[in-house]
Amino acid sequence: MDKIFRVNMTDLTTRIEEVPAAWAGLGGRGLTSTIVSAEVPPTCHALGKNNKLVFAPGLLSGTAAASSGRMSCGAKSPLTGTIKESNAGGTTAQLFARMGIKALIIEGLPEEDKFYSLHLTTDGVSIAEETELLGKGNFAVIEAMEAKYDKKVGVMTIGSAGELKMASANISVKDPDSKIRSHGRGGMGAVMGSKKIKYITIDGAGATAVAIADPDKFKAAARVFAKAILDHPVSGEGLGTYGTNVLVNVLHEAGGLPTRNFRFGQYEGHDKISGETMHETIVARGGKPKHGCHAGCVIQCSQVYTDKEGKYVTSGFEYETIWGLGANCCIDNLDDIAEADSIMDDIGVDSIETAVMMGVAMDAGILPFGDGKEVIRLIKDEIGQGTPLGRIMGGGAASVGNAYGVTRVPVVKGQGIPAYDPRSVKGIGITYATSTMGADHTAGYSVATNILQIGGFVDPLKKEGQVELSRNLQIATAAIDSTGMCIFVAFPALDIPECLPALIDMLNARFGISLTGDDVTELGKNILKLERKFNQDAGFTNKHDRLPEFFQEPVPPHNATWDFTDEEIDAFWDF
Amino acid sequence: MDKIFRVNMTDLTTRIEEVPAAWAGLGGRGLTSTIVSAEVPPTCHALGKNNKLVFAPGLLSGTAAASSGRMSCGAKSPLTGTIKESNAGGTTAQLFARMGIKALIIEGLPEEDKFYSLHLTTDGVSIAEETELLGKGNFAVIEAMEAKYDKKVGVMTIGSAGELKMASANISVKDPDSKIRSHGRGGMGAVMGSKKIKYITIDGAGATAVAIADPDKFKAAARVFAKAILDHPVSGEGLGTYGTNVLVNVLHEAGGLPTRNFRFGQYEGHDKISGETMHETIVARGGKPKHGCHAGCVIQCSQVYTDKEGKYVTSGFEYETIWGLGANCCIDNLDDIAEADSIMDDIGVDSIETAVMMGVAMDAGILPFGDGKEVIRLIKDEIGQGTPLGRIMGGGAASVGNAYGVTRVPVVKGQGIPAYDPRSVKGIGITYATSTMGADHTAGYSVATNILQIGGFVDPLKKEGQVELSRNLQIATAAIDSTGMCIFVAFPALDIPECLPALIDMLNARFGISLTGDDVTELGKNILKLERKFNQDAGFTNKHDRLPEFFQEPVPPHNATWDFTDEEIDAFWDF
Repeated sequence: MDKIFRVNMTDLTTRIEEVPAAWAGLGGRGLTSTIVSAEVPPTCHALGKNNKLVFAPGLLSGTAAASSGRMSCGAKSPLTGTIKESNAGGTTAQLFARMGIKALIIEGLPEEDKFYSLHLTTDGVSIAEETELLGKGNFAVIEAMEAKYDKKVGVMTIGSAGELKMASANISVKDPDSKIRSHGRGGMGAVMGSKKIKYITIDGAGATAVAIADPDKFKAAARVFAKAILDHPVSGEGLGTYGTNVLVNVLHEAGGLPTRNFRFGQYEGHDKISGETMHETIVARGGKPKHGCHAGCVIQCSQVYTDKEGKYVTSGFEYETIWGLGANCCIDNLDDIAEADSIMDDIGVDSIETAVMMGVAMDAGILPFGDGKEVIRLIKDEIGQGTPLGRIMGGGAASVGNAYGVTRVPVVKGQGIPAYDPRSVKGIGITYATSTMGADHTAGYSVATNILQIGGFVDPLKKEGQVELSRNLQIATAAIDSTGMCIFVAFPALDIPECLPALIDMLNARFGISLTGDDVTELGKNILKLERKFNQDAGFTNKHDRLPEFFQEPVPPHNATWDFTDEEIDAFWDF
Repeated sequence: MDKIFRVNMTDLTTRIEEVPAAWAGLGGRGLTSTIVSAEVPPTCHALGKNNKLVFAPGLLSGTAAASSGRMSCGAKSPLTGTIKESNAGGTTAQLFARMGIKALIIEGLPEEDKFYSLHLTTDGVSIAEETELLGKGNFAVIEAMEAKYDKKVGVMTIGSAGELKMASANISVKDPDSKIRSHGRGGMGAVMGSKKIKYITIDGAGATAVAIADPDKFKAAARVFAKAILDHPVSGEGLGTYGTNVLVNVLHEAGGLPTRNFRFGQYEGHDKISGETMHETIVARGGKPKHGCHAGCVIQCSQVYTDKEGKYVTSGFEYETIWGLGANCCIDNLDDIAEADSIMDDIGVDSIETAVMMGVAMDAGILPFGDGKEVIRLIKDEIGQGTPLGRIMGGGAASVGNAYGVTRVPVVKGQGIPAYDPRSVKGIGITYATSTMGADHTAGYSVATNILQIGGFVDPLKKEGQVELSRNLQIATAAIDSTGMCIFVAFPALDIPECLPALIDMLNARFGISLTGDDVTELGKNILKLERKFNQDAGFTNKHDRLPEFFQEPVPPHNATWDFTDEEIDAFWDF
């Protein structure tokens, strides 16, 4: 039977609890958001004693289901003030699931000014004081833990940004190659830092296979599901070849690639930072163009990017990061961006928030547009060292905007707007505005239908159909985020008729239940409503479901504006 | 006939407009809040093109009514995100009134990166580019303007903090002695800086006496009113002798003097910074213990504080500043606090916000508690120079809290909580929580009744009666803030039966109208509701009418906690 592992950092005690009946059918985002809603006062200080940090693997994590190894991390966000779920690949979701850990709940704050580590085994959690690795980067922590335990140990860790409780701090997760994946958005690393936990190790010894109620049915469904992923041109081909960075040229072509802090929709340097260029570079240098973020991933959108000497620089080198430091900061040097990405991984800051922040910093005059070397220096020496300027920058785009009086600050609910201009890709704008998470492209990735023509086509430049599109995708995503599945399974799910039924069959076969498609939709709706209720109780209203006023300016090449009325946006919640 | 002077900083045009009928009966806060509500989109960026900066003298400003020379400044606040009215003494309210300027409305933002000055005469406003005084302090601006025009010129100016659009930047106003009063709270200086106006000069040549409909009635009422102020022990005696700083010992005695960033209610160094000590020091050094902030003030709560050599250091040296750097930062050296006060005037930051911020900075470890010399250095060399640390500090208490991950941040709606512990002076806690302005003691000064036993007595340590007290005072204050009257006229108004009727008689005699006491109450209620509506339209809810969670900790010596339920607080708005 799965258990809840609970850690109280105030009195440094741990315990193992039964799973309450109401939580039994939940996993991933559905479970973290339910626990946060049940146990965290919505108006509490996100870095205070009343916030809780919750980790939960998805419902299918630990099984043989393809691409099911995503772990959800939830808390009240210090960046947005909203509820937050941030999921990541790596090895922890599968370890948790096989060890029978339904969720890890970390509450309270230590009385003393000391840091600690947590060590999870099937027997429970132990807490130890940590001194040696304080101030060290995430790569060093992973290396030290593998030396202390073994190559299989699971690690979740914060860098200096998390120790310093910066609102853009992420939680880094060891991936199958001992590199880094991230619970990136919303400052989950600051919450972990506030609880004075430098790292969490997971020892899977004694873990068993996840129980499957109907193994034959599961196996059959898993086969159909994996085939659907591989048959789809995007999840089966495009992402594996070019990574998510396939999108640079696609978005440039569509006029939706935010450039120079969202002034333009196309970037003249796009070719130099595109997925195609990246692929050629990786191949030429002997890197790894294809790579999974967790065992069992069949999409393999990650890669290993090496320098000219063939030395490892970074992996999980995503479109949003490359867009953010590339087009949006006008840096057309992929090596500079890769180096910055690696340092962001090491000090533990969200690469999207940091990239959006740099665009604002350039508008503030802190550094010139296009200066990749200075970006690297700022991340390493200012954010990484926690200087006053680093503190401002580590607070994210809104923090720089506030400190320097900049009005061109692309954020919603305090979170930086990613890589798709909401004026020329209007469906994603609805997602940014309405998501319970602040501006988050993964919350309802309408780019799929607006640009990639997956699941049909809704013209990105017209208002018609965008609210419905974003609503359907946000509902579906909330459900998918509960399964441990990678969001990219949505592509085949939208286009290949057998895919979604196979996913539901796997859930039913795993738990011996009989969910229908409607049940899954209902689950997604319930999660969104629960999250929205938390936000409302924290003081959020429809007035926060708005984009910054500068999006009323037209953006070339289409001269598109953000032209939804308040009523049109608010209709999102009519379900 | 009074006119509206309107300045458009986008196209650098100015014009004179008739006063719309709906605004005719309004002045001061009632008028600024009405104009901001009518013309500023509540969700706009406070430093963006859609915010407006509005100045309006009170309804009785410019007349012979005692203590009626307060000017209201209104806008959407960059500190709180709420509507804001901040009023100040000085010479501008009376100049505006006599020149027939009902209000000055400044809108738009310049296209070019240049600064400007405005010059007001009875003929209108002229705009000139300003280069020489950029980066200069407020004292230098006043000096330069008196040299350029004459001693009588009115001046409103921003220091480096306003130029840099810091959220704690104030607008400094020349007082009758060529020293400085401030539109202190809420970052009005940042709004002026965003509009790239370094200073505004007012040339009263050609101004006439304010028209009085019934001069005899006015004169008689004014006499009764002035006598009431002078007969009251606080407004007629205590404030004139010790200044507002009379409160240090009073609040210490009451256990409501927030000490060491709101950890204690008493300060062992209270004697060294008290009003009594200040009075003796000023007298011994040949300073000026009594001084009015505007011509016609009979309360004279200001003073001129000199150094050991008798050289001017500061004036308008208020209790809240002395409390903030004194008890709350544990600095028991009045000379250090006075020097800091003078520098804050010169660079143009709110001394309350800055003092509260320093307490948070001390908890963040930026400087030790008690280090007055470092406070001076930080204000001068960091905030004044706009270094990154100065930017963080210039953003106020919440900004430092965010940058350094501090949870003990005494703010409501982003504005620093002043000088009275809400746990042991509970009525003022209700004002902090519910005020439309963020934490603002002047919005409904229940300290009067809780501690000074003015207008009766409501036990400061008990919840009973506090909501009603704060409600009545906030309503009355909104009305008083519309007359141009100093808030301290509330003391005789609460205790001396003839006072309030005389104030209403003056309004009626001035305008030839027949307001009743109920009408004035109705005016106050309408202003509060209008302001609240703006805030709600900006996204504020009752969830923002709350104190930070650390106020649940008991505060010595009474071990009082903040124990109001949400429902009890929300009942404030039942009117």
